[in-house]
Amino acid sequence: MAQSGTEKNIEKVNLKSAAGGLTELFRYLEVGRLNDHMLNIVVAENRTLDFHAHEDSDEMFYIIEGRMRIDFEDRAVDLAEGDFIIVPGGVSHRPVCTVPVKTLLIEKAGTLTPANTGGTYRP
Amino acid sequence: MAQSGTEKNIEKVNLKSAAGGLTELFRYLEVGRLNDHMLNIVVAENRTLDFHAHEDSDEMFYIIEGRMRIDFEDRAVDLAEGDFIIVPGGVSHRPVCTVPVKTLLIEKAGTLTPANTGGTYRP
Repeated sequence: MAQSGTEKNIEKVNLKSAAGGLTELFRYLEVGRLNDHMLNIVVAENRTLDFHAHEDSDEMFYIIEGRMRIDFEDRAVDLAEGDFIIVPGGVSHRPVCTVPVKTLLIEKAGTLTPANTGGTYRP
Repeated sequence: MAQSGTEKNIEKVNLKSAAGGLTELFRYLEVGRLNDHMLNIVVAENRTLDFHAHEDSDEMFYIIEGRMRIDFEDRAVDLAEGDFIIVPGGVSHRPVCTVPVKTLLIEKAGTLTPANTGGTYRP
C-alpha cells in the first residue's frame, strides 16, 4: 500500500559530492539501503587487499572517480570512471588500488567485515 | 567456496558507453544482476509515467546523463547527472522525463512490469 508521508525522508545523493566529502581513506560511508543491500562509498589509494570471496552475496564495484583493478585468480580487470563490475558470490577476488579512487560498493548488508576490508570496515 | 574458472565470464560495464549504445527510447537494457536484483539502463525523454508503487522492492534511480524528476505525492525531487535516489517499496512515485535522460535502474527482478513502465518493459 502506498505510504503517504514517508516520502519526506527520501533524499537524493550525488555520488561525487558524497565522495568528495570523504576525507579519510578506507572509511566506509553508507549512503543508502536498497532492500537488503548496503551502498557504501570508499576512497582508497595505495592498498591491495588479500584475496577473498563473499560466500553469500554478489558484490558490485562502481568507479565514481579514479581507477582501480580487480584481480581474479586467473586475470585482472582494470576499472576507470563510470565502469562497474559485479563479482559473483563465491568468486575469489582482490581489489588493487594504486592511484586514488572513489568507489561505490553494493552488496548485501552483513557481507563486509573487518577481515575482508583490510580491517577498515567498522559495522 | 571460491569458484575458479567462472571468473572468465565476469565483464565490466561502462555506464555511459552502454547507455550510448541504446538508440531506442524507453527500451530496458539489462546490464547486470546483483543477487536477486536487476540492473537496467533506460533512455527516456518527454514522458511522464503514472503514479505507482512497488510493493515488494525498493527502487534505485541513478542518473548517467541528463536530468529527470521523481514526483512523490507531496513533493518533487530533481535529479541530475551523478545523483541517485532510492524510492522505498510501497511509496507512490512517478518518473517525469522532460529533457533526454539516461538512467540506471536497480530493483528486485520481477518488479518491473508493462503496467508500471508505461508499457515499455518487456520481460
